Amino acid sequence: MSIKDKIAVIGVGCCKFGENYHQSTNDMLVEAAFDAYADAKIDPKEIQAAWVATLSSGTSGTMLADPLKLYKIPVTRVENYCASGMDAFRNACLAIASGMYDVALVAGVEKLKDSGQRGLGSFNAHPVFAYGTTAPSMFAMAATRYMHKFGITKETLAQIAVKNHKNGTKSPKAHFQMEVTVDQVVKAPMISSPLGLFDCCPVTDGAAVAILCRADLAKKYRDDPVYVKAIGLAVTSGQPYYQPKNEYVSFEATTLAAEQAYKQVGIADPRKEISFAEVHDCFTITELLVYEDLKFCKKGEGAEFIAAAALDGELPVNPSGGLKSFGHPIGATGVRMIYELTTQLRGQAGARQVKNPKLGLAYNLGGPGSVGIVTILGNEK
Amino acid sequence: MSIKDKIAVIGVGCCKFGENYHQSTNDMLVEAAFDAYADAKIDPKEIQAAWVATLSSGTSGTMLADPLKLYKIPVTRVENYCASGMDAFRNACLAIASGMYDVALVAGVEKLKDSGQRGLGSFNAHPVFAYGTTAPSMFAMAATRYMHKFGITKETLAQIAVKNHKNGTKSPKAHFQMEVTVDQVVKAPMISSPLGLFDCCPVTDGAAVAILCRADLAKKYRDDPVYVKAIGLAVTSGQPYYQPKNEYVSFEATTLAAEQAYKQVGIADPRKEISFAEVHDCFTITELLVYEDLKFCKKGEGAEFIAAAALDGELPVNPSGGLKSFGHPIGATGVRMIYELTTQLRGQAGARQVKNPKLGLAYNLGGPGSVGIVTILGNEK
Repeated sequence: MSIKDKIAVIGVGCCKFGENYHQSTNDMLVEAAFDAYADAKIDPKEIQAAWVATLSSGTSGTMLADPLKLYKIPVTRVENYCASGMDAFRNACLAIASGMYDVALVAGVEKLKDSGQRGLGSFNAHPVFAYGTTAPSMFAMAATRYMHKFGITKETLAQIAVKNHKNGTKSPKAHFQMEVTVDQVVKAPMISSPLGLFDCCPVTDGAAVAILCRADLAKKYRDDPVYVKAIGLAVTSGQPYYQPKNEYVSFEATTLAAEQAYKQVGIADPRKEISFAEVHDCFTITELLVYEDLKFCKKGEGAEFIAAAALDGELPVNPSGGLKSFGHPIGATGVRMIYELTTQLRGQAGARQVKNPKLGLAYNLGGPGSVGIVTILGNEK
Repeated sequence: MSIKDKIAVIGVGCCKFGENYHQSTNDMLVEAAFDAYADAKIDPKEIQAAWVATLSSGTSGTMLADPLKLYKIPVTRVENYCASGMDAFRNACLAIASGMYDVALVAGVEKLKDSGQRGLGSFNAHPVFAYGTTAPSMFAMAATRYMHKFGITKETLAQIAVKNHKNGTKSPKAHFQMEVTVDQVVKAPMISSPLGLFDCCPVTDGAAVAILCRADLAKKYRDDPVYVKAIGLAVTSGQPYYQPKNEYVSFEATTLAAEQAYKQVGIADPRKEISFAEVHDCFTITELLVYEDLKFCKKGEGAEFIAAAALDGELPVNPSGGLKSFGHPIGATGVRMIYELTTQLRGQAGARQVKNPKLGLAYNLGGPGSVGIVTILGNEK
């Protein structure tokens, strides 16, 4: 019930995230893929199978096969809301662990700036819930409830935006390269009360790629491979906000995915054992809830944990700048998290490098708390 | 490089295919899933992970988790054009072979009759190719070229429609339950010359489900499990019709996927070793090309092979009635083929039962010849 240490990440690539009006989806995929090929020092002909993640920027495996000329091999599109990227990574890992393929490529991409999709669209699966339930409004309900229950303020949430924007200035491929202050965050235009503009991640274009292989072949490609320790995925309802038992201050999908992953790798105290984390801060409140759901701290103690999550803190969270500052091109985000974990675990993260990391955790969330996926990578077997 | 005999199919289910205006996507998924649960005599709580395939009838794993209440476990959506269903099956097989899960569910669904999607839409990925390249027009080019090169006529193609409609009358869940004559097929209204109405598969609603487990656990569920022998998937260009080397009389994705699968199971002479096949006859010309691409006969000899493909022939093809008669709800089709293979291999196909099958082959095609996937199942280990 585990694929621990069976798969290695041998190359990662990422295009500059941002308002990439000058690039097509294909252009971004090519940039990220050749970045990864160079990183892995691999001939693209060695890729035996591939997975591509997108919510709305293409269909079928051909959307990756055509720009990369990855012809004649299997290429599968995976879609799982905003967690598409990490689920594509998961399916590639499972496929390598099955023994069917030795080397696989995973790509995630989304082009949001010139499409109708803004990540703010109304979820219209159910007639009662079709109107007004945009992403900001649903996460705003969680923020409102959390404020009521645990007594935090807009200033508390603002600290998360300040931290992630600060990290983003050390992250050359991040969408934003600017610091913000608590005062700026609190006074920013309101999007969906209590979440203002700087509580929300931006609308971003981007692509990221990871190249994986059987762990026993990894040293053929590089001296410092990173190993897949665990992957947990849990899906709850597509309408979790309307489940009678939902207390609005936790995502069950997160807690369940983390439980699966911690069990696979044998982690008893995540706060002590995880070196750093990249988490899905689509909104500031999301990161706060995720601290608690990942058991980095107890329920209600997220606000106190923010200091520990700083780049030089006890358990740095979102050294990359997170979705908040790096950006959130939907299908790309989960793969971009793998890019950051790998870069950090190799000690190649430059100004944003965390100290002596051993285990990195990435958490990708899909839908309004519906799809939770946790991946743990490590730099030792 | 093989997952031969590592996975068993222990249950299959299918709703009645047709113009299901009385059923939602969820209704059809529930009907097919409970059909499969009953068939496997399994408690739904034993399902550890799931995959769902659709082109356009939903998004994310929640589209399956919600109707089936398959909460707290991993559920992934896979999309690969019209081959989505079989690629979802493939990803589930790889996941079980990885050791991560013991029991998994695969569902495919599409509701076409009351959506804008008609399977005839223009492929608009490229500005030059955006206009007029509907599915019938692209397959009509292959038919025109094949007629020119090998001297067949509309009457030749009509024999395939006649065969598959005849088989469909013995297939209680098929969309159509009516025979047609060569004369009717040839004189039917023209869709895209030379393909008339009866050369085209219908626009159909439907869902199908398969339940898989580790092969060594299969006998716990039933005495007659069916084993996964091989799965090959090959992706070529999303615009294969415009590749300079395309001769318009073969799908490279088919030949490559078949080569992968035959190698995995050690098949040298498919015509002798395969007992029967379910293939992707979206148009009559497609089935003709597929005979040749699957090496059931030589290139140019497809017309002669039609007689061998009859229900009581040497190598029955589409005993279910095929896409032509059973219908083609896009995401469901690949899983529906697994349903038919399993039913036949257990000897439970009633009036359409093929004689003493040992190995069944299913072939699912996605896009205009872009995505080819071949699965081989057998009833002996």
